[in-house]
Amino acid sequence: MILLKDLEKNYEKYIDKDIEVAGWIKNSRFQKKLGFIELHDGTQFKPIQIVVDSNLANFEEVSKLHLSSAIIVNGKLVSTPNAKQKYEIQAKEIVVEGKSSDDYPLQKKRHTFEFLRTLLHLRSRTNTFNAVFKVRSELSYAIHKFFNERGFVYVHTPIITASDAEGAGEMFEVSTLDLNNLPKDKDGNVDFSEDFFGKKTNLTVSGQLQVESYAMSHRNVYTFGPTFRAENSNTPRHAAEFWMIEPEIAFAELEDVCNLAEDMVRYIIKYVLEKCPQEMEFFNKFIDKGLIERLEKVSNSDFKKMTYTEAIEVLEKADVKFDYPVKWGIDLQTEHERYLSEKIANGPVFITDYPKEIKAFYMKLNEDGKTVAATDLLVPGIGELIGGSEREYRYDVLLDKIKDAGLNPEDYSWYLDLRKYGTAKHGGYGLGFERMIMYLTGMTNIRDVIPFPRTVGHCEY
Amino acid sequence: MILLKDLEKNYEKYIDKDIEVAGWIKNSRFQKKLGFIELHDGTQFKPIQIVVDSNLANFEEVSKLHLSSAIIVNGKLVSTPNAKQKYEIQAKEIVVEGKSSDDYPLQKKRHTFEFLRTLLHLRSRTNTFNAVFKVRSELSYAIHKFFNERGFVYVHTPIITASDAEGAGEMFEVSTLDLNNLPKDKDGNVDFSEDFFGKKTNLTVSGQLQVESYAMSHRNVYTFGPTFRAENSNTPRHAAEFWMIEPEIAFAELEDVCNLAEDMVRYIIKYVLEKCPQEMEFFNKFIDKGLIERLEKVSNSDFKKMTYTEAIEVLEKADVKFDYPVKWGIDLQTEHERYLSEKIANGPVFITDYPKEIKAFYMKLNEDGKTVAATDLLVPGIGELIGGSEREYRYDVLLDKIKDAGLNPEDYSWYLDLRKYGTAKHGGYGLGFERMIMYLTGMTNIRDVIPFPRTVGHCEY
Repeated sequence: MILLKDLEKNYEKYIDKDIEVAGWIKNSRFQKKLGFIELHDGTQFKPIQIVVDSNLANFEEVSKLHLSSAIIVNGKLVSTPNAKQKYEIQAKEIVVEGKSSDDYPLQKKRHTFEFLRTLLHLRSRTNTFNAVFKVRSELSYAIHKFFNERGFVYVHTPIITASDAEGAGEMFEVSTLDLNNLPKDKDGNVDFSEDFFGKKTNLTVSGQLQVESYAMSHRNVYTFGPTFRAENSNTPRHAAEFWMIEPEIAFAELEDVCNLAEDMVRYIIKYVLEKCPQEMEFFNKFIDKGLIERLEKVSNSDFKKMTYTEAIEVLEKADVKFDYPVKWGIDLQTEHERYLSEKIANGPVFITDYPKEIKAFYMKLNEDGKTVAATDLLVPGIGELIGGSEREYRYDVLLDKIKDAGLNPEDYSWYLDLRKYGTAKHGGYGLGFERMIMYLTGMTNIRDVIPFPRTVGHCEY
Repeated sequence: MILLKDLEKNYEKYIDKDIEVAGWIKNSRFQKKLGFIELHDGTQFKPIQIVVDSNLANFEEVSKLHLSSAIIVNGKLVSTPNAKQKYEIQAKEIVVEGKSSDDYPLQKKRHTFEFLRTLLHLRSRTNTFNAVFKVRSELSYAIHKFFNERGFVYVHTPIITASDAEGAGEMFEVSTLDLNNLPKDKDGNVDFSEDFFGKKTNLTVSGQLQVESYAMSHRNVYTFGPTFRAENSNTPRHAAEFWMIEPEIAFAELEDVCNLAEDMVRYIIKYVLEKCPQEMEFFNKFIDKGLIERLEKVSNSDFKKMTYTEAIEVLEKADVKFDYPVKWGIDLQTEHERYLSEKIANGPVFITDYPKEIKAFYMKLNEDGKTVAATDLLVPGIGELIGGSEREYRYDVLLDKIKDAGLNPEDYSWYLDLRKYGTAKHGGYGLGFERMIMYLTGMTNIRDVIPFPRTVGHCEY
């Protein structure tokens, strides 16, 4: 048996020879004595055409198969120089592996993405979702490959945690207590000492703090795992469960962090364009016209840089009415971010040195005392793609920042230890994996780039 | 600045030239006018020797630095053909990036693994844990590489789920309800309709059922992600949070599943031996003598096969007193598994076709009506490394098996759909990632191969 992806690479070798393929019927049209089946085997985007004539022993049976039936085909591969496809199979034997029922819900007509979200177990059989999840897979590999080639150590930071990395996340609690029969302490509150871990625990919102400890032992490290936000946001950009990539590099400053992010973005765009040409062509044609050209441009251009203060000046001068008024100190909104990357930079742009008040406690305080060495990478069509910073590596300054943020230094004693036992300048960034898939495919709803999305009120399968 | 791993590859090029390196002091000895520092930069296992003499401007300061202080060194790389190491640096300038405090808890003496478990944020600086987590990283990459090269699509199955893959796991619940103020329904039970997802949800115990739906669209797929068991087991082999690799292949039978597992195990052993020579030598010398020879043998030998029924016969005849008595129908215990792989197979062995009563509902019923097409791969020193099966692909048989297992067919309607709309023979296996790391390194406690282990009563950091 041969896979379609392997056949595509070496088809000349098999011309006029008998081969065996297997897959699912994507499309078929049958006349009295002749039929054509488009067979998809999942190993590449394109199906193969199977020609069936009435000499086939079970021609009748095959002609009546519903879409998505599974078959195993033996036949001769023939060259078809005048047709759209380069080759087809003239079937000699077709084994029906699994008939599809006549109520198969994905018929030939186009279905809305919304409808397909009700069929998460079947939608990956459609062109769009087949392509999305192939790109998702190759993108994931590209990221691992990028970091591995550079000697980064992949650290699996914990999913269940007793700390809150940002000091502000809305979190999911994790427990084995019987909620209908909770143990109580003497004040009538839930007694978490009887829980599995002997304390209150939750799902991680970021692996950054933990991965920093590995940057102090392995120098260049990254984490790539699921993260969780219990935000009650029903938007096309929010999911409760998503994957995040967080590299962390030691003996490094903000500029090194920006350079790493830029190298990574360029690398993974090139990788996906090269490894998924059929899928990217599909997106370019049916989902987001101009996608490939835009990505190619980004992968070949230098990213621009601008301080937050410069960005505010630009926005204040802009000939545009923003919904959110602009002044120094505000958190940039998506409308501002898109204006900066689309109208000013005309491509990806790093904004650096944000006011300390709007950024997390662990970011390095700049010498001006007002800003921190943070950066966001903004890209056209999306806004923020990556957020990073140099970390505060000075023990005393970090301790003050923890206190100023209203956090308890005791909860961060291990994090402070990293500044006590051989601290080094270091920094890193976070990239939302799904946001990157959306950027690469032109898909506009995060629910459509996650195999089994979890959002408010939705946890099916 | 150059990384030690890059220097090691091309050191001849830099001999007698000035270079800059950075890292942490692993060891140092100082005389009045001369000092030697072993500097570790995290990019390779081996440190580099820095020679410091009293001409150095801050010789005094450097001579007093505590272990693990971070420094940046400029100096000349010189060849040392008569020494243990091939080269060293004669320091011209040393910048102290971060002093380590004198209460640094990892002193030169050997610490027990148990003690180091209380310092999860620092233990990766020790030789053993530095090596373990480098191997963990390379092993993870080897697994992705193996599947990617074969065209497998990586599917991120969900972490939060409303279903229980095995029908029997002990699970962690996930909730955003205020446990001190739970909403109740009219019968006084917790009202999960007010929870984030509108229902009771938990952490996944396996991504297998979900990934099967992708085998029906992308043919060869795998998932590799965190899984959870809330088992109250305080043993060296159990963790509440661990990572699992679960490939699933379509148009495939049990033999294909075994072949895939065998190919993968051989591939990843070879990969890690090749990519982590310094680390593997360390394990071979200090953790598990004979490790490398054993692994090399496994990576070059064919795995044996034996049916469960044959295995029981062998065990019944064995000249050994087992704690658990042997008869057809029992679940094999680790003592039995080790006997079979160590004494009988003298290497890895697949046991196949287990009694249906001791295996999960989704495994394919064999024609004898008594056994299922399941397999466990047993290896010396560990016992079960991999568990897999061909899945029941026949709608009616699966429906009966779901009912026989006391499960509600409605909860599995989507899973049954996969057998209704073009079913195909398929199967896969699960590999516990941490168990594989233990097998490769000789480490014997699962807590020592997870960066931040979660076990009963332990959820630190």
